[in-house]
Amino acid sequence: MATLTGSAAREEIAAANERFMDAFGRGDADGVAACYTADGQLFPANSDIIQGQAAITTFWRGVMGTGITGARLQSLEVQGESDFAYEVGRYALTAGGGQEADRGKYVVIWRREGARWKIHRDIWTTSLPAQTPA
Amino acid sequence: MATLTGSAAREEIAAANERFMDAFGRGDADGVAACYTADGQLFPANSDIIQGQAAITTFWRGVMGTGITGARLQSLEVQGESDFAYEVGRYALTAGGGQEADRGKYVVIWRREGARWKIHRDIWTTSLPAQTPA
Repeated sequence: MATLTGSAAREEIAAANERFMDAFGRGDADGVAACYTADGQLFPANSDIIQGQAAITTFWRGVMGTGITGARLQSLEVQGESDFAYEVGRYALTAGGGQEADRGKYVVIWRREGARWKIHRDIWTTSLPAQTPA
Repeated sequence: MATLTGSAAREEIAAANERFMDAFGRGDADGVAACYTADGQLFPANSDIIQGQAAITTFWRGVMGTGITGARLQSLEVQGESDFAYEVGRYALTAGGGQEADRGKYVVIWRREGARWKIHRDIWTTSLPAQTPA
């Protein structure tokens, strides 16, 4: 396992994260889904596995429909090989007016498709305290 | 990215999952933590990142302390290279009497350390519905 620090792959993954954040900020669920492989998978809490770009589009459109207007990704670690890498990072979701709606951490499996790196497996967990029943 | 189907690595990862489940079933938090790399990380919901074997031991001992007596892992996908792989799977946690306490899905980054594969990054999310405040 080679560290991709300074490599083209690392820069391309950073650029892909920028595309994700830009699309999210535009409310463009199709643009967000385009960051994933055709057989990409999401593993959200309180849900079964979500697979494929159509289902991924629907998922992110649903998140946007709850009033989430922005996603910020902070990469902590990228390791991998020529066409396959994993990333660990932190995320924050913001609602209207920039207030924090959620924050947590994520693990993404990236796969290279030609010149582009795409998100192949995407899983995250909130770092906020559990909501306890009132 | 090579599929590890049929390879020694795939069998070793399956054996490592068996060690995890066996240790869990014995209530042996140290044995569970021994399945992780020295700088392994967990990403539980409602928590910051947990890093290192001591913290990982404490985490799993805490889970066992809530009455969880068993963990069942079902591997769905293992892909990787010579010393690094990812796995997607489903888990179920059981409480006393074998009743299901939680079930969900996970992504694990495995790293080879000598002959042994160890869990390097471990993240999972419940598939149960969200608990809504009463």
